[in-house]
Amino acid sequence: MKTFSVGVSAVIPAPRSLLATGEGYVLTEATTVVFTPDDGEVARIATEFAADLRRWTGLAVPVTVPAAATGATGIRIELLPELGLAREGYTLDAAPGGVILRASTAEGLFRGSQTLRQICTDSAIPGVRIADEPRFAWRGTMLDVARHFFSVDDVKRYIDEIAYYKLNVLHLHLSDDQGWRVEIAARPRLAEVGGACEVGGGPGGFYTREEYADLVAHATARYLTVVPEIDMPGHTNAALVAYPEIAPEGYLTEHFTGTEVGFSNFDVANPATDEFVDAVIGELAAMTPGPYLHIGGDEVMKLTPEEFGGFVRRTIATVERHGKVAIGWDEVARAGAPSSTVVQFWRTHPDQDFLAPIREAAARGSKIVMSPGSRTYLDMKYDESTELGQDWAGLISVRHAYEWDPAELLGEVPDGALLGVEAPLWTETVTTLAEIEFMAFPRLTGIAEVGWSAASSRDWDGYRTRLAAHEARWDALGISHGAV
Amino acid sequence: MKTFSVGVSAVIPAPRSLLATGEGYVLTEATTVVFTPDDGEVARIATEFAADLRRWTGLAVPVTVPAAATGATGIRIELLPELGLAREGYTLDAAPGGVILRASTAEGLFRGSQTLRQICTDSAIPGVRIADEPRFAWRGTMLDVARHFFSVDDVKRYIDEIAYYKLNVLHLHLSDDQGWRVEIAARPRLAEVGGACEVGGGPGGFYTREEYADLVAHATARYLTVVPEIDMPGHTNAALVAYPEIAPEGYLTEHFTGTEVGFSNFDVANPATDEFVDAVIGELAAMTPGPYLHIGGDEVMKLTPEEFGGFVRRTIATVERHGKVAIGWDEVARAGAPSSTVVQFWRTHPDQDFLAPIREAAARGSKIVMSPGSRTYLDMKYDESTELGQDWAGLISVRHAYEWDPAELLGEVPDGALLGVEAPLWTETVTTLAEIEFMAFPRLTGIAEVGWSAASSRDWDGYRTRLAAHEARWDALGISHGAV
Repeated sequence: MKTFSVGVSAVIPAPRSLLATGEGYVLTEATTVVFTPDDGEVARIATEFAADLRRWTGLAVPVTVPAAATGATGIRIELLPELGLAREGYTLDAAPGGVILRASTAEGLFRGSQTLRQICTDSAIPGVRIADEPRFAWRGTMLDVARHFFSVDDVKRYIDEIAYYKLNVLHLHLSDDQGWRVEIAARPRLAEVGGACEVGGGPGGFYTREEYADLVAHATARYLTVVPEIDMPGHTNAALVAYPEIAPEGYLTEHFTGTEVGFSNFDVANPATDEFVDAVIGELAAMTPGPYLHIGGDEVMKLTPEEFGGFVRRTIATVERHGKVAIGWDEVARAGAPSSTVVQFWRTHPDQDFLAPIREAAARGSKIVMSPGSRTYLDMKYDESTELGQDWAGLISVRHAYEWDPAELLGEVPDGALLGVEAPLWTETVTTLAEIEFMAFPRLTGIAEVGWSAASSRDWDGYRTRLAAHEARWDALGISHGAV
Repeated sequence: MKTFSVGVSAVIPAPRSLLATGEGYVLTEATTVVFTPDDGEVARIATEFAADLRRWTGLAVPVTVPAAATGATGIRIELLPELGLAREGYTLDAAPGGVILRASTAEGLFRGSQTLRQICTDSAIPGVRIADEPRFAWRGTMLDVARHFFSVDDVKRYIDEIAYYKLNVLHLHLSDDQGWRVEIAARPRLAEVGGACEVGGGPGGFYTREEYADLVAHATARYLTVVPEIDMPGHTNAALVAYPEIAPEGYLTEHFTGTEVGFSNFDVANPATDEFVDAVIGELAAMTPGPYLHIGGDEVMKLTPEEFGGFVRRTIATVERHGKVAIGWDEVARAGAPSSTVVQFWRTHPDQDFLAPIREAAARGSKIVMSPGSRTYLDMKYDESTELGQDWAGLISVRHAYEWDPAELLGEVPDGALLGVEAPLWTETVTTLAEIEFMAFPRLTGIAEVGWSAASSRDWDGYRTRLAAHEARWDALGISHGAV
């Protein structure tokens, strides 16, 4: 099998600094992956990179630690906390005498190993000197598994594909009007009843707790934080079908297979709703090793601002009581969310009505994740000819998804207020892994670069050229993708 | 560093069949660990065994997959589901030409790799042919971290020590009168207030959810299932100190640093108690990947049989609603526990009053774990001269812990009713890892053999001889232990 290398000049996201030095390290039967120190995570990263090298080259690629007796050239993977590199930073030097990947954390080694995967051909690792670290701490994508359900295997494969681009957050939209997708043992009807539906009337589905744990473990092993979202108090029809006792008088409590929004919400005046929320959040928090829990909060149309604000503040307190940091869609900034809450900006245009509360939240200390709909919504069509997808947030070409700066959209916010970027993929029209891939690539690749690479190092023409190598790789591997 | 091999004739627990064949495989600079298939768990087991070989020998011990180009002799680790071996079974063949470890599951490979660790010297793996599998599915030990608290690092080290003897269950007694040891975000005072005490008045402590997850992950990587216990409705003083609203009128709600039992219990008539139990079990179930949750149930002295039975049945239903199998001390067999509940026998003498309800539970379909106090309680003194420990269940010599058969104690029970054996270590007098080790070894080693090895293959004289090699190893490694 071939590596489908993209070549040393086509790494995405662009490294902080990269110098192609010509002649590289030739892979031979003697090539060894040497790691240090001899500990678990470093060994795992070395072992998994060697496994890929084997698949690509057919060589044996033994993995070992430095030993005086072996003078073997090879690929060295070194964890050196004393280097003091940024948490996800790494350095990579490849030359005829060997290859050295160094980082101060195992996470940095993992990110660097993705660069190695991108540049490695089936016969050599080209000569290069790289020093790299990310611009933003949060580089994510959201997958809506509620409008259509996707299997654990499909999501795992998608995780593998996005880890290659150094993304580090997978936000799972686990509930919406059309389906509830994670087992909550304390409220078993959520998954059993609320899960048995999806857009268009398919069978839906849900992750058992074991499957969810398996999915999270797969992501964690790739240094991706899973952020689970239970969208509340709106987008809750599936929950209300399962537990009609927390639906307001007169609301629909039957399965919904359409795509309209705004018609459902919890009965926020009912104490049983708070008990329900506490049970769901408590269990989901305990199942989730990452620090975040997403409470949704978007598009609530039938509650007064007071009703909405009260529910949001109580729910954030519940999340915090269960030991997690709350994150919500940007409506929560207008609902008096405390500064501990992360605000996810999703608006499609820079209307001051939307921007002002978010800027104020940032001024009070809230961190902001940027998901402007008109740049990052992967379910938007590429252009008029795209059959899949929607267009309410605009058409989003590959260039449009790439050519913007998260720091310029909000206007003045304090240094450090921007946590990063995230590209959501809503799935009203998306039903298969191939369709996920088609909408994500190459726009998500661009968002990955927006999040990782320095603004000064980004330009469309250069990116477009690098992208061509990735398109060729996707074609070779059978990964669907859109066209530029 | 040396391997501290116990030698091929001293493996504990004794394998199903073992033939020493003389000349073995000599370790050299060319020795390679070769694994197949090239997948994650097999790679990890191979990588970790190679890391130990390196520590013992100073050799490089590269790890790789079979490749035509390399004719290297070495240690092959092969996952072969088609062999159809028992879940934890394995075969091991070592000869001058090489070593082959085979199993039908990764778990079997892990168990077999412990045998390899036991027999490997710093220069060779002796000639041997082994076919092995366990007698019982449950081979456990319980650690009481409530009477005295033990750090995550101490428990991890203990996990490593017991995995070497193929134990597969670590039961953690997480709550008792003297302390509550795991963070429950929904009831934060349990850990903060209830955790700040221990026998003798020390500071106590607790595991945060992250620490608990870390501990469980460490155990899981060694194919040990963690079974968390919240002892209820008695042994609950620490919980009542934290939440006095669920204490019966007039009960002590202050920290307790003594060792008496039987004075505390929940107010089982208070609906707030059921809410409390639901919140605790829900969160602990969600944090725990293994299938079991232990509800305690022992030594409740102030409730009527009706009050006790009602609470136990409700609590078991709560555990099952949260997706786990309940296990309880054998009192639950008399409380009308359903047949889905595992019953842990702990009595110190074969009184029919105790035995009859357990036999009846077994006849109804309950599985039984055997922890007879007079054989398996690791906190009992070895003999009159032992300073540490207690003697209320009798003195337990190394021979007494070894020379019994779990199948003969209960009398007639259906085939398959015996799930296995478990040795609890209560820690009223035990305060350090060295003291844990001193009480556990070598009696726990004997329980491991009682649980793993065929009854016909066990005899005291042979075991005593094998044990000598393990005692020498413990001495060399600085692991405390008692004397035979």
